[in-house]
Amino acid sequence: MSVLFHRLLIVGVGLIGGSLGLAAKARGLVDQVVGFGRTEANLKIALDRGLIDAYTFDPAEAARGTDCVLLAVPVQATGPVMQQFLPYLSPGCIVTDAGSVKAPVVATLESLVPDSLPCVAAHPIAGTENAGAGAAFETLFEGRLCVLTPTTRTNTDALARVRALWEGVGMRVEEMDPEVHDRILAQVSHLPHLIAFSVINGLLQAFPPSTPPQSEQIDPLVYAGSAFADLTRVAASPVEMWRDICLENRDALLAAISGFEAALTQMKAAVSEGDGRALSADITRAREERQRLTRLREKE
Amino acid sequence: MSVLFHRLLIVGVGLIGGSLGLAAKARGLVDQVVGFGRTEANLKIALDRGLIDAYTFDPAEAARGTDCVLLAVPVQATGPVMQQFLPYLSPGCIVTDAGSVKAPVVATLESLVPDSLPCVAAHPIAGTENAGAGAAFETLFEGRLCVLTPTTRTNTDALARVRALWEGVGMRVEEMDPEVHDRILAQVSHLPHLIAFSVINGLLQAFPPSTPPQSEQIDPLVYAGSAFADLTRVAASPVEMWRDICLENRDALLAAISGFEAALTQMKAAVSEGDGRALSADITRAREERQRLTRLREKE
Repeated sequence: MSVLFHRLLIVGVGLIGGSLGLAAKARGLVDQVVGFGRTEANLKIALDRGLIDAYTFDPAEAARGTDCVLLAVPVQATGPVMQQFLPYLSPGCIVTDAGSVKAPVVATLESLVPDSLPCVAAHPIAGTENAGAGAAFETLFEGRLCVLTPTTRTNTDALARVRALWEGVGMRVEEMDPEVHDRILAQVSHLPHLIAFSVINGLLQAFPPSTPPQSEQIDPLVYAGSAFADLTRVAASPVEMWRDICLENRDALLAAISGFEAALTQMKAAVSEGDGRALSADITRAREERQRLTRLREKE
Repeated sequence: MSVLFHRLLIVGVGLIGGSLGLAAKARGLVDQVVGFGRTEANLKIALDRGLIDAYTFDPAEAARGTDCVLLAVPVQATGPVMQQFLPYLSPGCIVTDAGSVKAPVVATLESLVPDSLPCVAAHPIAGTENAGAGAAFETLFEGRLCVLTPTTRTNTDALARVRALWEGVGMRVEEMDPEVHDRILAQVSHLPHLIAFSVINGLLQAFPPSTPPQSEQIDPLVYAGSAFADLTRVAASPVEMWRDICLENRDALLAAISGFEAALTQMKAAVSEGDGRALSADITRAREERQRLTRLREKE
């Protein structure tokens, strides 16, 4: 694999940023990776684990000689974080991101960043519920899908180079309209996270923990099997990241919630009425589609 | 391990019944396992895989010499299925089950079964989304929890022997009131399944597949990451089993759905109002409780 970037600046060396640094270095896609972040403890872990070659808290130093900046921060931080590097980046430096919401990020970058710095918005659809440099691993992206959301303003050469970066770490890359991306991800990612949070919060409401804990009190989590554990796995995801996704993908997320609520209301009515035939129909439809997902994932 | 039962009759040789047959034989808990079911193809798989030693479709032959009957069938089938063995079982034969709902099963068995056949209701909390003898495996129960729901009518010796059976295949065993069991399981198992079904059905509504499929049509499942896959895993569960659980645990399930809906409505309002502080609070509360579940499961 030939070198794509001389010096990659990763802003936010967490699960995504850190894993990209590690994978890009391992595959020889970059000569050097510099980390930038808020917390020295995290950057030290990143340095120790070889995710980055150096780190700094000085935007000018971070920007020096950089030919690609990856913003891997909570989506609402995209604008403010980008702003601090703008005075120092050399013309031609590619700006890219890894945010889970694309339309507002594209709008922010296109209004903020001068034409001399080509922007390419990206969403590598990969992750776990764990956060920080300690959770990063080299194979995170392998076989997964990365969506690029170019617009009429996107520089073709920069688009090709960002595509090569994500393909270089093992992803399949696809291009899509930012709004379409946001509507789909609201359904298949953002809504599931909100549901996971709400399942736990509903349980806490139904079985409120008493303070101090009482010995005869029932802890419902003791009776949770793998269905509950898997369904709520992503409820352990980072707070700021998911707060920002909820805020930035508001309309698509509200629409997805309403659609889900309608489907749940239909099953609830069937339970309430003891309508076994309607329940069987709802379960069968969901089951067949879920089995199709299993087949899709086996093909990957 | 000493032999607990001479001849164990397993009615419904699926994931649970089949895995128990295999595990009980492997650990020498039973001399012989006989299978009874509706589908010869499934019973042949069970025989080939060594889950059972023999099978029959004749209730009289199935009951002959049996000192323990395990009903591992969809919960609404408990009564009708039990009825066909009643004329043939010898006094002292223990009747037990593996149903996910306990109060109605206890009521059915206690009204139907004469005192000469001691009944012990049980719920081994173990499983996968896969069904049938082909999905059974020997270690399914290891380290998992089994809840027994004895009543004042339960025979103490039979209770101890059923406990020994599940402990013998590696489960931790706990006793609980049937109604309390049903209320907890509605929250940590039955509701999550309904949610998984509804997430898929909501998605099918939002992105209806066109017939015939069109090439430019978006398939949202292609963009689903591990969050969606894990959250919906149990949507592939067997239809009859889950229809029956929904019907039999109606009131507890409706209460659990309402509690979840309230928690989701609260997050939806925060999204709608752009209330980042409220979102952070909801996510943080869920996250901390989910991390507690991770610690609980690591201890097991």
